[in-house]
Amino acid sequence: MKKTSLKDIAQKAGVSTALVSYVLNGKEKETRVGEAIAKKIREIAKELNYQPNHLAKSLRSGKTHTIGLIIADISNPFFANIARVVEDEAKRNGYTVIIGSCDENADKSWDMINVLINRQVDGFIIVSCEGSENQVKYLKERNIPFVLLDRHFPDIQTDFVATNNYKASYDAGLHLIRGGYEKIGLMAYKSNMYHMEERIRGYKHALADNGIEFQKSWLKEVKFDAMEREVKVAIDEIMKSEHRVEAIIFATYGLAINGLKYFNELKVKVPSDLAIVSFGQAEVFDLYYCPITFMRQPLENLGKTAVEYLLKNLKNPEEGMKQILMEARLIPRESSKAKSEWLVK
Amino acid sequence: MKKTSLKDIAQKAGVSTALVSYVLNGKEKETRVGEAIAKKIREIAKELNYQPNHLAKSLRSGKTHTIGLIIADISNPFFANIARVVEDEAKRNGYTVIIGSCDENADKSWDMINVLINRQVDGFIIVSCEGSENQVKYLKERNIPFVLLDRHFPDIQTDFVATNNYKASYDAGLHLIRGGYEKIGLMAYKSNMYHMEERIRGYKHALADNGIEFQKSWLKEVKFDAMEREVKVAIDEIMKSEHRVEAIIFATYGLAINGLKYFNELKVKVPSDLAIVSFGQAEVFDLYYCPITFMRQPLENLGKTAVEYLLKNLKNPEEGMKQILMEARLIPRESSKAKSEWLVK
Repeated sequence: MKKTSLKDIAQKAGVSTALVSYVLNGKEKETRVGEAIAKKIREIAKELNYQPNHLAKSLRSGKTHTIGLIIADISNPFFANIARVVEDEAKRNGYTVIIGSCDENADKSWDMINVLINRQVDGFIIVSCEGSENQVKYLKERNIPFVLLDRHFPDIQTDFVATNNYKASYDAGLHLIRGGYEKIGLMAYKSNMYHMEERIRGYKHALADNGIEFQKSWLKEVKFDAMEREVKVAIDEIMKSEHRVEAIIFATYGLAINGLKYFNELKVKVPSDLAIVSFGQAEVFDLYYCPITFMRQPLENLGKTAVEYLLKNLKNPEEGMKQILMEARLIPRESSKAKSEWLVK
Repeated sequence: MKKTSLKDIAQKAGVSTALVSYVLNGKEKETRVGEAIAKKIREIAKELNYQPNHLAKSLRSGKTHTIGLIIADISNPFFANIARVVEDEAKRNGYTVIIGSCDENADKSWDMINVLINRQVDGFIIVSCEGSENQVKYLKERNIPFVLLDRHFPDIQTDFVATNNYKASYDAGLHLIRGGYEKIGLMAYKSNMYHMEERIRGYKHALADNGIEFQKSWLKEVKFDAMEREVKVAIDEIMKSEHRVEAIIFATYGLAINGLKYFNELKVKVPSDLAIVSFGQAEVFDLYYCPITFMRQPLENLGKTAVEYLLKNLKNPEEGMKQILMEARLIPRESSKAKSEWLVK
């Protein structure tokens, strides 16, 4: 099958190649071509299955209209869904999104960024992984436009769109305290990523502000790479300790899933044996036998704003820094019902 | 930050630039350089944060060592997980994967394929969407290496790696029949994709082979784009009809999720009001109050084999067609327990 050229379309429509080019590049208004002709040209292009040569076009314009999206873990539904939002929003603005996943691994992230730079994306939206500060600095110093999404580095001045994780975690703790729980644990990743530190900080402050003395054994930090095993060990420890918790906050979706599976194995009853609040969001929180209270992050808004910021950068690189922290909202469900509600039963 | 060059590394290591190039391109054996020197060069490269210029490299070799993966829907965990498998397997073989999602939309799929061809991927792994036959033909005629994954077109001769959907659906039906269910429904997508047709065909044959007369009202086909609403309508119809089903097979993960949510709303009890078997796989099937029986597709094996086939094609384009249908395995859970088990209670 020969690739359809502008000439083929021009011949069939009985117009000049230049005119076809104007119409298909959306510039028909400049030439004041009638809408009937423009429509005819577009129909013929579709009929002949015309495919614009993006590379040739981008070599002329210096723009590829392509965004590179690096996500930390494609198998986490939060990121898969945010990728979908970014794609839709980019599409609405005439951009295509190419996705690379780095499995929370800084080396892979370097690879992906390089592969995509070499493939001439106009800019990046990046969900950073641990240890990738040098990559962010590298992009900055080369003046490659990018926006950090969901995670950012407080010591590097960049554009970012993220959730206020300190506040979200504080709110999760406060919600449990108001429900009558006092011994509250937090399961988080062993990580020096800022968003994780903020979740830990918010949790501790919620306890402190309400006169609850934080116990070291309540905070469990597990490795992302060994999550399945370490979550079990952590839960075993939590359940046996002398300060056994009555409630637990999961700092991520992955931790929650592994935790819930193990609770089922142990026949732990939620919330009477253990109340739960989780970060992340997924179908499973709705459909669990005891629906899970979670911090709803503004997924749509995060994704859309990241695209908006990046496109603004592309249009006007001199525009100032754009940074926003959005609020998560606690969605209360059965899993963290106030003690008074289930104690009477 | 200046980009580190081979020369920088050579100077620091006190060797020639050519030698550095050999070592970093994995050709040190050809020059019989000692392992100590090779190790030193690699360490310095790492220390100086050397980033190979993939594009320059690929212009010399004609290969980019990049695979384009087009998936039908990134927000479906089956595809997100298979993407992860493809990435890991590609990585093991020295390839990077660039992902594009097409939201079950043929136009978007065309866009993605073009964008990635223009970015010089060596080949494609594609989860096709409806109406994309012309794209597959286009790739074939241009001799662009590709493998279809999970879905294929029986009328176009291509390499493919897929599940035996007819057999899987037949087995799902048979399992329910053996459990004492006779009125069995199927909820599928309204689609002329072969994998969907095969799931319908397998279901019907399972009924016929066991002397059960198929009722038109048992088969519900809903549009992907309007799934949430149409699943509810379909369930309302199914539950009210005179041939009300006792069991239902969901042909996809998305249908199952929407169905389960609505069953919760209606307070339908699984399996006593309605038994369930589903395609797809996800955490939610484990964690639902009544764990869901599902057809486990060989996700790992599908992803790995797709990479294997593609790499074989890249090495030897003249090699014959490679096609495989893999078996899904039914994982029996509470949701389709034999009637005899719960009737006695």
